[in-house]
Amino acid sequence: MRITIIGSGNVATHLAAAFKNAGHNIVQVYSRDLQNASLLAYHVKAEAIDNLEQINPETDRFVIAVKDDAIELIAAELAKYDNLIVHTSGATDLQTLLKYTQNAGVFYPLQTFSKTRELNFNTVPLCIEGADEKITSTLNELAYTVSQNVYRVNSDQRKTLHLAAVFACNFPNYLYHVSQQLLAEKQLPFDLLRPLILETAEKVQEHFPAGVQTGPAVRSDEKTMAAHLEQLQQNADLQEIYRLLSQGIIKMDNRG
Amino acid sequence: MRITIIGSGNVATHLAAAFKNAGHNIVQVYSRDLQNASLLAYHVKAEAIDNLEQINPETDRFVIAVKDDAIELIAAELAKYDNLIVHTSGATDLQTLLKYTQNAGVFYPLQTFSKTRELNFNTVPLCIEGADEKITSTLNELAYTVSQNVYRVNSDQRKTLHLAAVFACNFPNYLYHVSQQLLAEKQLPFDLLRPLILETAEKVQEHFPAGVQTGPAVRSDEKTMAAHLEQLQQNADLQEIYRLLSQGIIKMDNRG
Repeated sequence: MRITIIGSGNVATHLAAAFKNAGHNIVQVYSRDLQNASLLAYHVKAEAIDNLEQINPETDRFVIAVKDDAIELIAAELAKYDNLIVHTSGATDLQTLLKYTQNAGVFYPLQTFSKTRELNFNTVPLCIEGADEKITSTLNELAYTVSQNVYRVNSDQRKTLHLAAVFACNFPNYLYHVSQQLLAEKQLPFDLLRPLILETAEKVQEHFPAGVQTGPAVRSDEKTMAAHLEQLQQNADLQEIYRLLSQGIIKMDNRG
Repeated sequence: MRITIIGSGNVATHLAAAFKNAGHNIVQVYSRDLQNASLLAYHVKAEAIDNLEQINPETDRFVIAVKDDAIELIAAELAKYDNLIVHTSGATDLQTLLKYTQNAGVFYPLQTFSKTRELNFNTVPLCIEGADEKITSTLNELAYTVSQNVYRVNSDQRKTLHLAAVFACNFPNYLYHVSQQLLAEKQLPFDLLRPLILETAEKVQEHFPAGVQTGPAVRSDEKTMAAHLEQLQQNADLQEIYRLLSQGIIKMDNRG
């Protein structure tokens, strides 16, 4: 299949590589910045362009992987070619494309991508949605060429998924940062916590989080929680975070 | 080396197995509940006891792995034997043992243990502290027989470590739970988020969290954050958690 990649960021980079590895032909890579386009295009043996006027219409799919606010503008430009256009955004509904073309869908990889880190795309959940059943079915096929985890997810569900991913990824990563800062104040290396962080994530690969919750809050260990809050007395923000999350854990326990 | 295990919970179970695997001789396993003592004792070929009067003094180390509030009582009982006594608690200082004996230390494994889950003890960080340099050195040797990650950590540092572990493990696990609940409301399976959770933890094995932070807050993407808060309008607690953690991420970014 001939695929054109619009964008050169983390998602564009990983998707383009996955498509290429699966045997697809990457026709062009577009970026406003020609250097970025060229870098990615070089890796996937495609042509680099920095102007949508240079789009080659001889392609099967336009895959838009750009910042959310730029999607609509790009879609408006590409709609005239009458090829299938998909975006890759968790936070953008299909409607944004449907304003310009009925030949539209969503191809949302639910993962945190960094350019510097390789990852096995085969396990990345791909959430697909088509403007009609035929498109959904086409996207389903395309998705299975690069991943074994393909889900049909509508725009309303995807909005929730995007929010849930903030709780599952962005917030935990911030809490890792907080723990690193606490250690640094006592000249302790972050290496001390790395195995704990990994094991915590590995546990929920087989179990549900509520079943493996540990720590003072789930034991209602008021003494330890009071001691922890006292240790945080120089930092009102962290105290508040500690209080709120502990209250959440206590309620979770009672609910079970 | 002859080791006596006081306790039969998660830490006692994993420590006893690690000592046994390293070739040490587990003399006895004590628990108030004889059935629990017997279960663990059977696995590590030790004698099970449920009464401290039955303690066999022919041992080299007493390893106390019981609930924090029970440590002092046990230490008071064991002090008469004049063997080295260590506790395994992150939240308890060495002083608690020193009230009863100078032959004391701490042997704190920084990991989240479940009885049902095997783990490679060799990578578990072991934080040791002795009442004097000779004891510290002895504990250092013992620690290296079961793990390659051994750290000398004093009581003040250990208190911080214990607090940091709540931020690195207990709170992220709660946020995984929240994300699962959000998905469940839209009939989406938790499997969708599992690869994301694992990748987030794997990223910080090589990088520092601040360097790999993603999401709307670190981009100062006000529009997405407002949309997420709106989605959470039925749940004031989650809104508050979302606001606080996002503010933390925004400050983290500005600081770097």
